[in-house]
Amino acid sequence: MKIVLIGSGNLATHLAIALNASGNEIAQIFSRTLENAKSLAEKTGARYTDDVEQIDCNADLYIFSVKDDTLPEILKRMPKTKGIWVHTAGSVPINVFVPYTDNYGIIYPLQTFSKNKTVNFADILVFIEGSNTETIHSLETLAKSISKNISYLSSEKRQYLHLAAVFVCNFTNHLYTLSAEILEKEDIPFDVLKPLIMETATKVMELSPKAAQTGPAVRFDETVMSKHIDLLTDGDMKYIYKILSESIYKHMLAIVD
Amino acid sequence: MKIVLIGSGNLATHLAIALNASGNEIAQIFSRTLENAKSLAEKTGARYTDDVEQIDCNADLYIFSVKDDTLPEILKRMPKTKGIWVHTAGSVPINVFVPYTDNYGIIYPLQTFSKNKTVNFADILVFIEGSNTETIHSLETLAKSISKNISYLSSEKRQYLHLAAVFVCNFTNHLYTLSAEILEKEDIPFDVLKPLIMETATKVMELSPKAAQTGPAVRFDETVMSKHIDLLTDGDMKYIYKILSESIYKHMLAIVD
Repeated sequence: MKIVLIGSGNLATHLAIALNASGNEIAQIFSRTLENAKSLAEKTGARYTDDVEQIDCNADLYIFSVKDDTLPEILKRMPKTKGIWVHTAGSVPINVFVPYTDNYGIIYPLQTFSKNKTVNFADILVFIEGSNTETIHSLETLAKSISKNISYLSSEKRQYLHLAAVFVCNFTNHLYTLSAEILEKEDIPFDVLKPLIMETATKVMELSPKAAQTGPAVRFDETVMSKHIDLLTDGDMKYIYKILSESIYKHMLAIVD
Repeated sequence: MKIVLIGSGNLATHLAIALNASGNEIAQIFSRTLENAKSLAEKTGARYTDDVEQIDCNADLYIFSVKDDTLPEILKRMPKTKGIWVHTAGSVPINVFVPYTDNYGIIYPLQTFSKNKTVNFADILVFIEGSNTETIHSLETLAKSISKNISYLSSEKRQYLHLAAVFVCNFTNHLYTLSAEILEKEDIPFDVLKPLIMETATKVMELSPKAAQTGPAVRFDETVMSKHIDLLTDGDMKYIYKILSESIYKHMLAIVD
């Protein structure tokens, strides 16, 4: 497939590299920041531009991988093209494309992407959606060229999947950040937490998260919890500690009932 | 070493099994619940009791692995014994033993333990502390028999390590629970999140948590965040979403500054 990629962020970067490696042709990369477009184009042998009017109109597929807030604006400025239009966002419904084209859809890879961390795209779950049978078939073929795990998912369901992903990925990673701060003040290297982080993730590959829950909040060990809140010097962190502990305890009561 | 174990919870269970497998003698297990003492005793060839007065007074080591709140009460009721007294708690200072004996310390394995999930004790970081050189040496020898990673850590530092562990393990696991609830309502299997959970953990083995952060909050994508808060029906979860997103954003501003 001949592909034009609109966007050059973390997801766009990993997707472009995976598509290129699987024999698809990344013909062109558009980014509002020319330097970013150029940098990604160099990795994939693509042309690049920061001018919407220079976008190649003869590709088979246009992938919009931009911040949700900027997608509507870019769609408005797009020239008329042939080919399918898709986006990669968790929380934008498929009907965003209705005013512009008949052949459109979604390619939603459920993963966290940072530019300086490689991922094995083949293991990533990719969720697709399309405006008609032919489009769905094309997107399925494309998705299968980069991943072994393809599922169809409606826009309605996809937004809940994205929401759940924010909890297990973005919020979880922020808890890692907060714990790194706690240790940094005490000159304890973050490395000591790594086996615990891996085991916490690994446990829920086998057990349900509820069955895997441990710690002072589930035992309602008030002595430990109030000591911990005293140790925290940052008001926000005290607050986060309290409401997560309360939530853990409420959920555990629900199990016992 | 001849060991008496006081407690039969998750940590006591895994520790007893690891100690037994490494050639130490678990002579006796005490638990207030006789059934629990018996069950763990059967796994380790130990005697068992629920009567403090029946505790064997001739062991080399007494390991107190009980809820923090109940430790002081059990210590008070203990008979006079020979041997070292240690506990396994993250947040209880070493001086809890001062009124009772001269040879005491801590064995603190930094891990999450559930009875129905095996762990490889050899990979667990074990932190020790002791009241005198001879005791420290004995605890070090014992710890080395079950783990390859032994460090000395003061009570002062240990409480911060425990606090950080609550964030990366207990709170993280609760985020997994909340996400499982979001998906359950939509009939989406929790399994779809597993690759994302593993990648989120794996990323911070290489990158710092701050460098690994992704998602709507770090981009301050207000459209996505307000959609997500609308999708959540539970008031507590809306609240958790808001304060974690705000905290992510604040930390990212701190990086840019």
